[in-house]
Amino acid sequence: MRISLVLICIGWLVIVKAYGQQEKEVRLTSYVNPFIGTGPVDGNSLSGNNYPGATVPFGMVQLSPDTKDIPDWNAASGYDYNDPTIAGFSHTHLSGTGVAEFFDLLVMPMTGERHTQAGDVNDSSTGYRSKFSHDKEQAKPGYYKVQLLDYDITAELTATTRAGFHRYTFPEQTHEGYILLDLNHTLNKGAWGTKIIQSQIRVLNDHTIEGFRVLTGWAKMRKVYFRAEFSKPIVRNLIIDGEYEYENERVVNGNNLRAIFDFDVTDGQPVLMKIGLSPVSTANAQENLSSEIADWNFDGIVAAADALWEKELRKIVVEGSEKKKTVFYTSLYHAFLQPNLMSDANGDYVATDYVTRNNKEAPFYSTFSLWDTYRAAHPLYTIVQQRRSTDFVNSLLSQYDAYGYLPIWQLWGQENYCMIGNHAIPVIVDAIFKGLPGIDIERAYEAVKNSSVTTHLNSPFKLWDQYQYMPEDLQTQSVSITLEMAYDDWCVAQLAKKLGKTSDYEYFTKRSLYYKNIYDTKSAFFRGKNSDGKWLEPFDPLEYGANGGNPFTEGNAWQYFWYVPHDIEGLIELTGGKSNFSQKLDTFFTLETAADATNHNASGFIGQYAHGNEPSHHVSYLYNYVGQPWKTQHYVSEIVNRLYTDNHAGYPGNEDCGQMSSWYVFSALGFYPVNPADGVYAIGSPFFSEATIQLENGNRFRIKTKKKSEEDIYIQSAKLNGKPLNVPFLKHENIIKGGELEFILGKSPNKKWGTSPITRSLY
Amino acid sequence: MRISLVLICIGWLVIVKAYGQQEKEVRLTSYVNPFIGTGPVDGNSLSGNNYPGATVPFGMVQLSPDTKDIPDWNAASGYDYNDPTIAGFSHTHLSGTGVAEFFDLLVMPMTGERHTQAGDVNDSSTGYRSKFSHDKEQAKPGYYKVQLLDYDITAELTATTRAGFHRYTFPEQTHEGYILLDLNHTLNKGAWGTKIIQSQIRVLNDHTIEGFRVLTGWAKMRKVYFRAEFSKPIVRNLIIDGEYEYENERVVNGNNLRAIFDFDVTDGQPVLMKIGLSPVSTANAQENLSSEIADWNFDGIVAAADALWEKELRKIVVEGSEKKKTVFYTSLYHAFLQPNLMSDANGDYVATDYVTRNNKEAPFYSTFSLWDTYRAAHPLYTIVQQRRSTDFVNSLLSQYDAYGYLPIWQLWGQENYCMIGNHAIPVIVDAIFKGLPGIDIERAYEAVKNSSVTTHLNSPFKLWDQYQYMPEDLQTQSVSITLEMAYDDWCVAQLAKKLGKTSDYEYFTKRSLYYKNIYDTKSAFFRGKNSDGKWLEPFDPLEYGANGGNPFTEGNAWQYFWYVPHDIEGLIELTGGKSNFSQKLDTFFTLETAADATNHNASGFIGQYAHGNEPSHHVSYLYNYVGQPWKTQHYVSEIVNRLYTDNHAGYPGNEDCGQMSSWYVFSALGFYPVNPADGVYAIGSPFFSEATIQLENGNRFRIKTKKKSEEDIYIQSAKLNGKPLNVPFLKHENIIKGGELEFILGKSPNKKWGTSPITRSLY
Repeated sequence: MRISLVLICIGWLVIVKAYGQQEKEVRLTSYVNPFIGTGPVDGNSLSGNNYPGATVPFGMVQLSPDTKDIPDWNAASGYDYNDPTIAGFSHTHLSGTGVAEFFDLLVMPMTGERHTQAGDVNDSSTGYRSKFSHDKEQAKPGYYKVQLLDYDITAELTATTRAGFHRYTFPEQTHEGYILLDLNHTLNKGAWGTKIIQSQIRVLNDHTIEGFRVLTGWAKMRKVYFRAEFSKPIVRNLIIDGEYEYENERVVNGNNLRAIFDFDVTDGQPVLMKIGLSPVSTANAQENLSSEIADWNFDGIVAAADALWEKELRKIVVEGSEKKKTVFYTSLYHAFLQPNLMSDANGDYVATDYVTRNNKEAPFYSTFSLWDTYRAAHPLYTIVQQRRSTDFVNSLLSQYDAYGYLPIWQLWGQENYCMIGNHAIPVIVDAIFKGLPGIDIERAYEAVKNSSVTTHLNSPFKLWDQYQYMPEDLQTQSVSITLEMAYDDWCVAQLAKKLGKTSDYEYFTKRSLYYKNIYDTKSAFFRGKNSDGKWLEPFDPLEYGANGGNPFTEGNAWQYFWYVPHDIEGLIELTGGKSNFSQKLDTFFTLETAADATNHNASGFIGQYAHGNEPSHHVSYLYNYVGQPWKTQHYVSEIVNRLYTDNHAGYPGNEDCGQMSSWYVFSALGFYPVNPADGVYAIGSPFFSEATIQLENGNRFRIKTKKKSEEDIYIQSAKLNGKPLNVPFLKHENIIKGGELEFILGKSPNKKWGTSPITRSLY
Repeated sequence: MRISLVLICIGWLVIVKAYGQQEKEVRLTSYVNPFIGTGPVDGNSLSGNNYPGATVPFGMVQLSPDTKDIPDWNAASGYDYNDPTIAGFSHTHLSGTGVAEFFDLLVMPMTGERHTQAGDVNDSSTGYRSKFSHDKEQAKPGYYKVQLLDYDITAELTATTRAGFHRYTFPEQTHEGYILLDLNHTLNKGAWGTKIIQSQIRVLNDHTIEGFRVLTGWAKMRKVYFRAEFSKPIVRNLIIDGEYEYENERVVNGNNLRAIFDFDVTDGQPVLMKIGLSPVSTANAQENLSSEIADWNFDGIVAAADALWEKELRKIVVEGSEKKKTVFYTSLYHAFLQPNLMSDANGDYVATDYVTRNNKEAPFYSTFSLWDTYRAAHPLYTIVQQRRSTDFVNSLLSQYDAYGYLPIWQLWGQENYCMIGNHAIPVIVDAIFKGLPGIDIERAYEAVKNSSVTTHLNSPFKLWDQYQYMPEDLQTQSVSITLEMAYDDWCVAQLAKKLGKTSDYEYFTKRSLYYKNIYDTKSAFFRGKNSDGKWLEPFDPLEYGANGGNPFTEGNAWQYFWYVPHDIEGLIELTGGKSNFSQKLDTFFTLETAADATNHNASGFIGQYAHGNEPSHHVSYLYNYVGQPWKTQHYVSEIVNRLYTDNHAGYPGNEDCGQMSSWYVFSALGFYPVNPADGVYAIGSPFFSEATIQLENGNRFRIKTKKKSEEDIYIQSAKLNGKPLNVPFLKHENIIKGGELEFILGKSPNKKWGTSPITRSLY
């Protein structure tokens, strides 16, 4: 214990020195609660599907407890706060997804009987699982600790970018401690054809092991190599390949591998295990490990991880209530968990065509949940992760090179076609328009254009040209695709225009208006239409679609009605003018749905508004476009206050790789990118008394908000750099230049502020 | 036609110039009949499972017709001579295996209707298949030609090391010719979990396509990249991914891809397609293609392939009957088809741990069907493929590095554990004892030893140490494994001795005698024994085992009785002396089996002797060890004359990647490696009047045989370098030094020749 304390002190001194902060200053990492989003508060509700484990910003390794042995969509991060037992700690996790994947290299310490199966989640007596209690569990950025009650083992985890670090303290009076390594731990093998193709565990010496697994699953083919070292000598090893057991072998190859390593823990010293990962080779895993964790200073790595997080979180410093700061910094933390680095220390990575390539100039990132994250997460990165945004864009372009079109949902460097649209396009176009350096614009345009003309799954561009809408009989999810494709086309058109490609500009601009072709004036909704030009009957705007077999994707006609972010004036016109439009918005936020008309991805309701899924995310800001910004302020505040919590539920639906969090971060600051690629933010209802954005160019942008109580949610007046701001919009360039935005809030709406008509000049 | 003739002439001139031969000299390639072994002569018999297509010696590409759409063990090469239709031409094949695998990138030309499914083997009207006739089919080394009767298309194929070259001549008066590329063509998807994980077809321009497929099958995970060019512009392309159709797209990704490319063939010119393969990347495939097929000279590539074969075949020049020369040179051809090169022109290859590595110094080979080929194929390579033998050994050692033990059956660089034993060991030990340069002997010893102590599938060395035999209840196929493991152990012991590792030598020598522990004196057979030391009951020496669930592997107690190649004196002693032993041999060659007591891998019977499978292969030579070499001469002659044919059946069982052929090559020369790693060959009954081995060191070894008729099969006398040779054995070093071995044969046995007792001094 003494050594441990000394190390913590050293770690702390390092941090204090690095940041020159006074000890009294509260670290922003202390506001992050990694348990937020890890499990619903009751059985019928949803949570974020986040994980509580240890990781560094945008890292390759997420070392986190899995309560699920075979995780599925229900707890896609592997961990459900409501589960009573832990099956072990695996090294890779997705944050907030609806589909489970990764869970590489599960590690579990144990004493007593050497269990080789995880056992039942509710009965830890049947396998290597252990009961745990949230009283004896702790998580903070880069660090996780839990008492494994069945074994009285204290398990601590930390991580670097490409390596995990475990510290297991066995109970006193114990002689033998075991550490299990399970290479067969994956998502539910019934899903996505998941299976281990081949794997290896090799015992190099009594302190060192390495190996790999090759598997197919939601990611079509992943290779995961590792190299691990233990602080104590292995006194015995048992490697199990399904029905075969191998004792003290130097290497076992198989497709159902588990190993148990025995250690002498009589001296009361913990067993430490550090493990480097690589998608390329064990040699790279070794290099990743040695370059990131040189020695056995666990607490030093904890402190280093904390310092990395502090550095990232400090990009936005806010003043406000402890609860809101907790939700805010946890949201920022969740937003910065991914995209995940996928290249090794030496620059090697596996491209989308499964070819190992090398890029020493820039890191390669993956985990692009683009249907979610293009909306707010990527715009947020263009403000506070500018250098990484360039790397993200170039990583997206790498898929174009290897695959022929840009990612839809890129996982471990590979395309899984989850959801619809081609929303790498707005991400790339936005980054270019925002002037991020390091992007080859002509190459980017080629990628963006070819991704918009090369027919692929759910993107039948020939039908798009032929029918000028998606016919449901030829392409299901047709309304959602029509709307989202029109938006992507608008983005392509803007870039074409910038590059002087006039005919392309005209072509894609024309396509960007095809959304109008599925507007049914009679019902005043976008509706599914077949290739014969006839509307699908019967039509119920409350009817939900899932992911196929219906014109709507994870939503209904109400939720998708608003999806014309590039031509809101056109949508208003289509609806019959501002009055009709605002009335429709009012109905949207108040119309209750019959209970059986939801699917699991629509949740977090305010009327028909479903904050639990992305199609709604921009809608509360649309009142700004019809001169009623106080209603935006009202509903944004309601969402902030009612649908985000500081308990373990956290979110009203999947957190979705940072999107749900980025919505909160933007809304807390007081604005939101309704069109994620036009450099304009719609102003909502800021709630921190002060928020300072530290930009990478050295500038600062400060948002000050004067209010008397928490009920003061309505903007009374606003100033930008000392001058009155009367439109409810803010340009990206104003943020980047640095400056100050001041708001005065009050309890009642000021129906005169922000009512100026929107004009093109703003864009 | 004129151009084609000119090109043939140019090709011929190139060859004539390269070899300085007179035009009158008959090319040895003309004796090769690639149809040998391609199909049984009647439905109940077996053939070699060879393919008739185009390939170069030890090449990566085997471009050959597949009559099977989903091949299985029945025609594991994809082609059955008895089938009436061809489904297309794919680029990779195994020669003579019992398991089907590869079949990458099936290409099929067609006219008329664009079929997208292969259709039924007996009904070419249902898909893209075409009827064909052996009358209008031709094959020679590096060239295959067939008339596709349904389309009246002349299809011609040739190959370089890593590229295939197609020439399709469409019928006159035809305007549109189609070429189909099927990336979903594999072995039977019901077997080995075979499925396409991901694939891509990309149309780079109107002459060029590229792509890849990643799949799992008998080889756990293969990546096959390609780059192809057409001699004519593609006027239209249709790419099908299962239910989806893509017309004139630039790229399609999917897991069920077929493409049809349309060409204007109005001008009567053929459509040529050249295609480079790579296991690493499309960039490498492109480099492989451009470095091997620079232009469109199809006939030049045919001539070059022929020249490569002529060079290899000319390593043994024989004089004899046309029929025997046909069988001999086809056997030599089959022996030189594999191991297959698996590294790219730039040295890249995928190692056994799925990591892309590079070796610019030496090629990397795979396709090691070692349980078969260690017996005679690899010993043959140590005589006539010495440089490649070093590469083979170093390729085997590469698996040790990546996998922890040496190959059992290595396919596409990966282990598939087919069969039993660790017979890379004799291959490596033999190469070292034969003094092949370029092998790091200490490294090789480490690999050989660790492969003999690291328990893995079917090699439970801890049981071996504990029981000193394989207990059937703990390790099935126990008798076969005990015998074969004892032999491998003897090999390890010899290398240990050479390196002065005395304790290792003693340990492995002790293990090499464990075979005695399963000898049942009562039945006078090796028998299955359980861990309790009791023999398995009931015991029937005629009962066959397959590949598990029985002490015997693809054989019975009779066939496995003889498998002590390293201690034949010990076996003789065990049997009760030479007389008992020779009587037992007599019974073996005469005892008929009940018809229902065979399995498909035992075939080609002479009594219990089953030449159709490997365990019998050395047995006819065992009479030499008991002073009755004339019986060896008798049975070897019977096998040669009865079980090898020059028709399409060819072999009495799977040709097994060169083993069945190598047996013939050795036996034709007059000797055979009974112990494949002791550098001694047992003399049989040479049948060519003259055979000259051209060695890589420049020496020549000539075998002259005087006989009056084909019935003269018995050795009357022999001379080695002019001195009488009275033992029926020949040392490897005598061959390598060069020299002359003369035999005089007669119609009746000379029971005085070769009867000297064998002595250790020979070894």
